[in-house]
Amino acid sequence: MTTAYQHLRATFTRLSRFEHLSAIAGWDMQAMMPPKGSLARSEAMAELNVLQHQILTTKQVGEWLKQADHEALNDIEQANLREMRRHYHNAVLLPESLVEAKSLAGAKCEHAWRQQRIANDWGGFAENLREVVKLSREEASIRGQAAGTSGYDALLNLYEPGTNSADLERIFGDLKQWLPALLQKVTAKQANEPCLIPQGPFDLQKQRQLGLSVMKVLGFDFDGGRVDVSVHPFCGGVPQDVRITTRYNEPEFLSALMGIVHETGHARYEQNLPREWLDQPISHARSTAIHESQSLLFEMQLARSNEFLQLIRPLVVQQFGEQPALAEQNFIALNQRVKTGFIRVDADEVSYPAHVILRYEIEKALISGEIEVDDIPALWSEKMQQYLGINTDGNYRNGCMQDIHWTDGAFGYFPTYTLGAMYAAQLFQTARDAIPGLDQSIANGDISTLFNWLQQNIWQHGSRYPTAELITKATGEPLNPRFFRQHLERRYL
Amino acid sequence: MTTAYQHLRATFTRLSRFEHLSAIAGWDMQAMMPPKGSLARSEAMAELNVLQHQILTTKQVGEWLKQADHEALNDIEQANLREMRRHYHNAVLLPESLVEAKSLAGAKCEHAWRQQRIANDWGGFAENLREVVKLSREEASIRGQAAGTSGYDALLNLYEPGTNSADLERIFGDLKQWLPALLQKVTAKQANEPCLIPQGPFDLQKQRQLGLSVMKVLGFDFDGGRVDVSVHPFCGGVPQDVRITTRYNEPEFLSALMGIVHETGHARYEQNLPREWLDQPISHARSTAIHESQSLLFEMQLARSNEFLQLIRPLVVQQFGEQPALAEQNFIALNQRVKTGFIRVDADEVSYPAHVILRYEIEKALISGEIEVDDIPALWSEKMQQYLGINTDGNYRNGCMQDIHWTDGAFGYFPTYTLGAMYAAQLFQTARDAIPGLDQSIANGDISTLFNWLQQNIWQHGSRYPTAELITKATGEPLNPRFFRQHLERRYL
Repeated sequence: MTTAYQHLRATFTRLSRFEHLSAIAGWDMQAMMPPKGSLARSEAMAELNVLQHQILTTKQVGEWLKQADHEALNDIEQANLREMRRHYHNAVLLPESLVEAKSLAGAKCEHAWRQQRIANDWGGFAENLREVVKLSREEASIRGQAAGTSGYDALLNLYEPGTNSADLERIFGDLKQWLPALLQKVTAKQANEPCLIPQGPFDLQKQRQLGLSVMKVLGFDFDGGRVDVSVHPFCGGVPQDVRITTRYNEPEFLSALMGIVHETGHARYEQNLPREWLDQPISHARSTAIHESQSLLFEMQLARSNEFLQLIRPLVVQQFGEQPALAEQNFIALNQRVKTGFIRVDADEVSYPAHVILRYEIEKALISGEIEVDDIPALWSEKMQQYLGINTDGNYRNGCMQDIHWTDGAFGYFPTYTLGAMYAAQLFQTARDAIPGLDQSIANGDISTLFNWLQQNIWQHGSRYPTAELITKATGEPLNPRFFRQHLERRYL
Repeated sequence: MTTAYQHLRATFTRLSRFEHLSAIAGWDMQAMMPPKGSLARSEAMAELNVLQHQILTTKQVGEWLKQADHEALNDIEQANLREMRRHYHNAVLLPESLVEAKSLAGAKCEHAWRQQRIANDWGGFAENLREVVKLSREEASIRGQAAGTSGYDALLNLYEPGTNSADLERIFGDLKQWLPALLQKVTAKQANEPCLIPQGPFDLQKQRQLGLSVMKVLGFDFDGGRVDVSVHPFCGGVPQDVRITTRYNEPEFLSALMGIVHETGHARYEQNLPREWLDQPISHARSTAIHESQSLLFEMQLARSNEFLQLIRPLVVQQFGEQPALAEQNFIALNQRVKTGFIRVDADEVSYPAHVILRYEIEKALISGEIEVDDIPALWSEKMQQYLGINTDGNYRNGCMQDIHWTDGAFGYFPTYTLGAMYAAQLFQTARDAIPGLDQSIANGDISTLFNWLQQNIWQHGSRYPTAELITKATGEPLNPRFFRQHLERRYL
């Protein structure tokens, strides 16, 4: 006799296959698709979304979930069942019509944004975004009512199960206490340490070669993934075939390079999720913040350390030749430079949290209805001036139109970046304590001990444990923001 | 009230969306996917195939098809209904288990073939192919019984509705009468006309640029398509987003260039299918042979004409510089050279039919059970010697392992290449008769009159008319092989 759990397994295997197609078509949409494919692609992906939603929310799945509670399951199966239940409850709340409408509006908004951002066309963008916000508010309201929380908290829980805005207010409130002073101190200190800017142009093919060589150092498996170009860098695809993207600019190569390092952090997590359960929810990455902790551990903790920069400097010189700005001390200073700027993805790790807090505050107010889409640009500029001293009036492309997240309604996502930075600091410090001579090994080009530690403590577990348990197992305690503060003070003061 | 026809429309719209995802994932599999993605992709695509099969073959679709017969439909709707019925009947015959098994076995065989071909590993390939043949025979037997024809004829009708092997025996029998003599005559004549071979290497990036510039001359819409690289060139994607591929070799550029021209012929047909019915069966390309007639009209009729070669020669020189082999007369001779060889896709148009007849004879015997997979290599070599004087003993990679078609069970496809060549000759001659000064216009770089003629007579009709009617409307008569013979004699004697 087939048990309820076995029925569920088969259903989730089927879903993972459709998710595979959705992931590849989504990657293609951003990395490959010519403009005239957009409408048909949006329709096709919306149709697939609806199908996935239908399969996940059939009455039978709900019944099997109830029955499976009474079946004899081992620890792994129970964890898998817990994740199945989470996916089911997240999905069953939304009517199909809303799922389809949101998918269509998001795809439309995102596709148009690609050109609108270049054209600084806020008016055109706002028109599409209003529809996305309207549908996201509907979603938030439905989810919030079911969870007995605010709508925004319910959206946040899609990305970061177990976190709410009270946690965030506390963590971000604390950050707002000490970060501005630190930022000022570091900026003042670095003002006295002149730093040369590398002189381009930097050939795009050579940048690509450099990126590939650094991905190799970082252990990316090229038999199970690719790197391509898209407007907004991301890590997509499926664990067996991870697709990362970057964007190259001729005048400046570090932004693309560090973008590649960042996405490679995501990619290695995906490429090392537990193979034996790959078609089941338990195999998924734990959460958005844990995913981000891996990319930021790679980009910020590892790649901007003196040791790693010493290691890859010869690869940079190999592509672009020597120049004073690429001398070792300058190359390190360059990659540890703190300089407030418009763009989140190019921000240093000291000012980065300000970008996140700004977005968190705006999106929370937007979802609750305190503000409307039309209020965003002014509020954006006001907060940018307050937190970073930067005015974005009229500069939409480098202001509130710079990110892809809101275009398809991913409200609640931004806070996970800073949570991720904090997890990254906590994990890296723990690994450093556990691995004797890690810094020296990195400088010598042997990063395998760090990767093994991550494999043992994070990657191999997928979603087996809730976030707090995963982090406690790995580091001895749940999220503790002091590691992040410590890290910033050690590196920058 | 929703009519049965309206229900059918909605069902086929939904199917076209899943077909979109299948097309893009299929393209990706050949043009982008790293090796470790293969298994999961095969499973995902098989799952989608099964779904499409389920949607198309639900009992309701059968009932709606019956009811729609009694509804008031205009001409276009009736033609659409005819095509819906054809798809339904083709699909409903096969049990789901066979659809899934064939999809899996085909994907596995095709993926392994990519490496096996390089390694000349017939043993490994044959093992996978036996499974594909076994399942294809099952399919042929089911379809043949339902249609009251041989199994092979039933497969042939999937690609070329309305054609059977009696037609082919007649057409190919006729070809076998006069083609060997013509081939000998042409080869003898050309032996006295020495022809210089361009000296490489030809930079791959420059080859790509050349391909792009020729695609532009041919009117490819780059806002609705791309060109990439794959082991076996093909035209895929969807009408709104057509994906063609080619393969470049440093020592020789004409093969990739003419491959691009060929796929661009397919692509322009797809890009110009009737926009207003794009989600319905009536909008599909008429048949495999008509599709091939467009690619061969581009490659053989148009692109190997003196006038077109004069037109694009400067583009070639722009990339690679002047050399004696690229002087006008030699460049023309080079592209009209008849030289028997191993590889079908590189064959000139005079020897090409021999490659097709050989494959037709082998696959027909294979499906009927007269021969087994293990008999293929010997038979291949025997027929290659008989038709083209070439021995392929032990040379599997350039013999029976050179094509992708059999790897996923596309038996019945090969004959459409030669039918396509014949339709191409008939269409081009008719267009030339209808458009005064066409040859001169081509030499001057204005090919729009030809494209307009194709748009009017072929592209815009999609599947509105059965093949014989489409060709009769366009040329005044159904398929007449004399145009092909005339064309060869005029160009080569």
